[in-house]
Amino acid sequence: MIPGATDPISRDGKLLILAYDHGLEHGPVDFEAVPESMNPEHVFDVATHDAVTALAVGKGVAEAHYPDYEDEVNLLAKLNGTSNLWMGEHDSAVNWSVEYADELGADAIGFTLYGGSNHEVEMAEEFRDAQEAARDKDMGVVMWSYPRGQGVKNDTKPGTISYAARLGLELGADVAKIKYPGDPEAMAHACDAAASTDVVMSGGSKASDEAFLSTVKEAMDAGAKGLAVGRNVFQRENPEALLDGLEKVIFEETSVEEALAAVESHGEQATLD
Amino acid sequence: MIPGATDPISRDGKLLILAYDHGLEHGPVDFEAVPESMNPEHVFDVATHDAVTALAVGKGVAEAHYPDYEDEVNLLAKLNGTSNLWMGEHDSAVNWSVEYADELGADAIGFTLYGGSNHEVEMAEEFRDAQEAARDKDMGVVMWSYPRGQGVKNDTKPGTISYAARLGLELGADVAKIKYPGDPEAMAHACDAAASTDVVMSGGSKASDEAFLSTVKEAMDAGAKGLAVGRNVFQRENPEALLDGLEKVIFEETSVEEALAAVESHGEQATLD
Amino acid sequence: MIPGATDPISRDGKLLILAYDHGLEHGPVDFEAVPESMNPEHVFDVATHDAVTALAVGKGVAEAHYPDYEDEVNLLAKLNGTSNLWMGEHDSAVNWSVEYADELGADAIGFTLYGGSNHEVEMAEEFRDAQEAARDKDMGVVMWSYPRGQGVKNDTKPGTISYAARLGLELGADVAKIKYPGDPEAMAHACDAAASTDVVMSGGSKASDEAFLSTVKEAMDAGAKGLAVGRNVFQRENPEALLDGLEKVIFEETSVEEALAAVESHGEQATLD
Amino acid sequence: MIPGATDPISRDGKLLILAYDHGLEHGPVDFEAVPESMNPEHVFDVATHDAVTALAVGKGVAEAHYPDYEDEVNLLAKLNGTSNLWMGEHDSAVNWSVEYADELGADAIGFTLYGGSNHEVEMAEEFRDAQEAARDKDMGVVMWSYPRGQGVKNDTKPGTISYAARLGLELGADVAKIKYPGDPEAMAHACDAAASTDVVMSGGSKASDEAFLSTVKEAMDAGAKGLAVGRNVFQRENPEALLDGLEKVIFEETSVEEALAAVESHGEQATLD
Amino acid sequence: MIPGATDPISRDGKLLILAYDHGLEHGPVDFEAVPESMNPEHVFDVATHDAVTALAVGKGVAEAHYPDYEDEVNLLAKLNGTSNLWMGEHDSAVNWSVEYADELGADAIGFTLYGGSNHEVEMAEEFRDAQEAARDKDMGVVMWSYPRGQGVKNDTKPGTISYAARLGLELGADVAKIKYPGDPEAMAHACDAAASTDVVMSGGSKASDEAFLSTVKEAMDAGAKGLAVGRNVFQRENPEALLDGLEKVIFEETSVEEALAAVESHGEQATLD
Repeated sequence: MIPGATDPISRDGKLLILAYDHGLEHGPVDFEAVPESMNPEHVFDVATHDAVTALAVGKGVAEAHYPDYEDEVNLLAKLNGTSNLWMGEHDSAVNWSVEYADELGADAIGFTLYGGSNHEVEMAEEFRDAQEAARDKDMGVVMWSYPRGQGVKNDTKPGTISYAARLGLELGADVAKIKYPGDPEAMAHACDAAASTDVVMSGGSKASDEAFLSTVKEAMDAGAKGLAVGRNVFQRENPEALLDGLEKVIFEETSVEEALAAVESHGEQATLD
Repeated sequence: MIPGATDPISRDGKLLILAYDHGLEHGPVDFEAVPESMNPEHVFDVATHDAVTALAVGKGVAEAHYPDYEDEVNLLAKLNGTSNLWMGEHDSAVNWSVEYADELGADAIGFTLYGGSNHEVEMAEEFRDAQEAARDKDMGVVMWSYPRGQGVKNDTKPGTISYAARLGLELGADVAKIKYPGDPEAMAHACDAAASTDVVMSGGSKASDEAFLSTVKEAMDAGAKGLAVGRNVFQRENPEALLDGLEKVIFEETSVEEALAAVESHGEQATLD
Repeated sequence: MIPGATDPISRDGKLLILAYDHGLEHGPVDFEAVPESMNPEHVFDVATHDAVTALAVGKGVAEAHYPDYEDEVNLLAKLNGTSNLWMGEHDSAVNWSVEYADELGADAIGFTLYGGSNHEVEMAEEFRDAQEAARDKDMGVVMWSYPRGQGVKNDTKPGTISYAARLGLELGADVAKIKYPGDPEAMAHACDAAASTDVVMSGGSKASDEAFLSTVKEAMDAGAKGLAVGRNVFQRENPEALLDGLEKVIFEETSVEEALAAVESHGEQATLD
Repeated sequence: MIPGATDPISRDGKLLILAYDHGLEHGPVDFEAVPESMNPEHVFDVATHDAVTALAVGKGVAEAHYPDYEDEVNLLAKLNGTSNLWMGEHDSAVNWSVEYADELGADAIGFTLYGGSNHEVEMAEEFRDAQEAARDKDMGVVMWSYPRGQGVKNDTKPGTISYAARLGLELGADVAKIKYPGDPEAMAHACDAAASTDVVMSGGSKASDEAFLSTVKEAMDAGAKGLAVGRNVFQRENPEALLDGLEKVIFEETSVEEALAAVESHGEQATLD
Repeated sequence: MIPGATDPISRDGKLLILAYDHGLEHGPVDFEAVPESMNPEHVFDVATHDAVTALAVGKGVAEAHYPDYEDEVNLLAKLNGTSNLWMGEHDSAVNWSVEYADELGADAIGFTLYGGSNHEVEMAEEFRDAQEAARDKDMGVVMWSYPRGQGVKNDTKPGTISYAARLGLELGADVAKIKYPGDPEAMAHACDAAASTDVVMSGGSKASDEAFLSTVKEAMDAGAKGLAVGRNVFQRENPEALLDGLEKVIFEETSVEEALAAVESHGEQATLD
């Protein structure tokens, strides 16, 4: 990690990345629970919440909406991604050049690496080009470090996740986004493995408020510098409430209880409005 | 979608794209019903009809004929395409550079993406280069978004078509050309999935006047911004008559009955001339 | 076809291309019948015959001999080709850059496309680069349009040959070189399919004078703009005699009988000299 | 080898390269024995030992830590490498461009070549680009020459290791890092095979002080110009002690006994401090 | 062949190329018979013999030694080559760019083409780039034309060797290095097939003085312009003696007997010194 590289997408050195590349990776099915989440405007509005330090979207979504939000939202340009219509060995198309992301005002780039895939070598070389171009433009670099493919039997094994975190450091990412390995000790090991590279926990599929906030708290206590979350926010009817809670846990270092109270009071306040 | 990107190939924000790349994609067999359709000049003449907002052709056809029609026809440069002599997994050759399309006066580019094909990753990266070059030249971007290949068992399933529409948005197309999914509700879902990206219905193989106009009407009412049509126009003895009807349905928002009347009165008028 | 593109390699809009890339494509075995045909100088001498509007050769042959013939011969740079030692799915190496062909004084480029081959997509993209570079240098473009490979069961089927001719138009060739489909009606259909792109008949393996001239006559009457011939010329002891006959049929539009008389009188004259 | 090419990473023409790319190649598991070795700072501190003539690390580690050590440590930029999560035929991603390595202040580049792998041709061509770029920037070139893959049944056979050393010379490396072939005679043969290219012995997995120093001594006597060592240093609780011993054997050409005494006295001194 | 292209690597239009790329292609095993041949300096010394018109070596060997011999030796930069550790279909890595070969002072380039290999197309395209870059730098071009791979059952068949020679001409080599096809008639045919491209006989594995000189004499009489020899020179204890003999046969067109006498008298003279 280069000193200061994450400044434009963090707050007090901590990150809450709202990820919204599901339309590409999973298709519209992820928006069924909360239909308004299909519309990027809705998610850009959510991203204006104080807790969100960056919004990760693909090129088309950024082109259409970022100009209206550039003062309120920090843009994390998710450069690669592929539909799940495709059934082959894990790979990801580079859909956006760093040069054009910079032109659109992006503050940082996001890049998926499937360590263990038969496309690992090719993806790592695409990452190299993107990472060095980002350095040239003074943009931060976030790696979605997800071991997958023929070589990976179990992608939630602690050793695999620590390796994923380490790949972020070794290859030159400022931030490594990894899955939560299940317990705080394993998460601490992964954070150690990443050394100076910041680790953020990947939000994953939707969980209850309490379960989710507890996991985030555990991750932060274990050394994570934040969270990258998608479905756990935009698949909620009231995403701002959960963001109030996440703000407590991540930036104010409160207990889970206090964070849950914030979630609930937001709900009440919304009802009162 | 970038604001204004479709202006040169639309009318009041709606599009009627006449597609004529069948000589490459299917071969001369598509011209058998109406032999004069083999000659591009015939189709360029048809494209001067007021209802047509753009003509989509390949490089060779544009080189030979566009100079004679550049004042009357808007050129949509169909960049990729492949013969059906080839039997492999769905793929498409990029036969035309954006730079040369621009030099020939094209207003927008057209690009096929076979989501789900084993070539999806490669095609998406070719699309990236074309899309960014088009942005650089202020040309609109139309994606033929056709899920096909090993990963796609049923390419007319509503969920698949909505995903296709969404890929248009995510990857940076101004317009996504998709198949009609069979019913208005599914079409509306696909249009929602595309969000700010315009959706145009793909015309498909030849149907009766009434059936075709009814489907187009349904698509427009469901949120489509227009139509891309080939065989349903050039495989008709009197393509202008149908274009009169399509103009009614698409740009004047009339009923199907009124549109059919326009088709028939054109026929009469032609007989009277 | 771009207006005027074939001017430097045609006469009154008609073409007689002498093709001499057999040393690469078939090896020295093609020169056994007439050993002096092994020596490119012999073939360059033949190419100075008035009937020949262009000589198609590869880079090495052009480098060695074209400087001595540049005032008398028009050079058609055959850019790609591969030995038949190789047994794989049909493909062709690009052995010559357009830039260097231009530097050596070439008037036009020649390029083989194997439609239907598993390498069709790659070859079409190589053709794109060559075609656009040729446009940039004001060089004509001739496509050897030969459907072959896994996707093509019968490459002499009329529909396949018409498709081949159409590919010439669609992809931007000024001239499409195709096999004779066996009868005049099928040839006429192929010429219609090519529309504004000129069609030249491929000479094929050696035939008798009468049979060959008759086929060429049929092709011309059906709409072809000329002939590309190799073995039927250089595998003859007296190639100039046949060229006299071809000149009659192609440029003077005589009967086959008159052409045959020209062939024979050349023979007599040669005997008298 | 180019005269003077190794000057910035050697001392009196001899090299002791501390290699620390295990986080990428093997993952955090290599740091378990001595947990502080997970932190690159610890290893940079070790690299300030007088015996170490260069530290070999990947891009991300160099970016994060080299700026703090550039006055005390010589940087050997290890350009390629791949995780062992990937199970395919031996290959290595190029993760770092020479241009950016130069920008970060690297003195030399390191590059792995898996001779015998199905990726040998591709890797050799990547090496070509890196080697020539390094020459352009006056950076030394070190090849990790490791025969592996389908073509290599036994990568410790003397003939194979001599071949590996020779590849360093033939392809233009200033230094070839090879495995110790097991006996001094075989090592001498490998050094002869490398001719003017310097040979350094690869440290391999951890051994006892005496065994390791003896092997290094044998290698030096056989003609090696030094050592590249990783685990045998950073997997020791007191790496400086062993470095004291290595300094004796490599640079002062002492006996193994004298070197062992230095290792032990360092231990005592550390205890006294 | 371009007029004058071989001037810097020939004498009176004839060539004796000393080839020394065996360390890459076969490994150190080729140097066992005469251990000093492992050291490139020894071979550079041999190359100063008047009979040698060029020395063919790889990049690393040239970098290390050519600066000391540039006044006495003409450098033929062997651009591609691959170890025989690799067991795949015949291919060869391009290890040296023409630009850098030129910078090091090379007079000509050497390039292997495996006609008939599944990599033939790719190798031919790499040759194209190298050949055109060499033209740009006024460097001669020598092709090692060796049919090999799946498509080639018998690489010493006369027809195959004549085809190999022809490929040199067709693709733009000034010199084609081919195997001796076994008898003078077949060699003459191969030389005819190459037309203006010079043919040099490949030396092959070590033979007796008489057998070797006889074969060279046969090849020269059949039309070859010289010899490319490696093992038959450097695997001899007294390579200069054989070079005396080769000089007689190749440049002075003597009988084999006279050449053998020269070989023997050199031996005597060496004994007398």
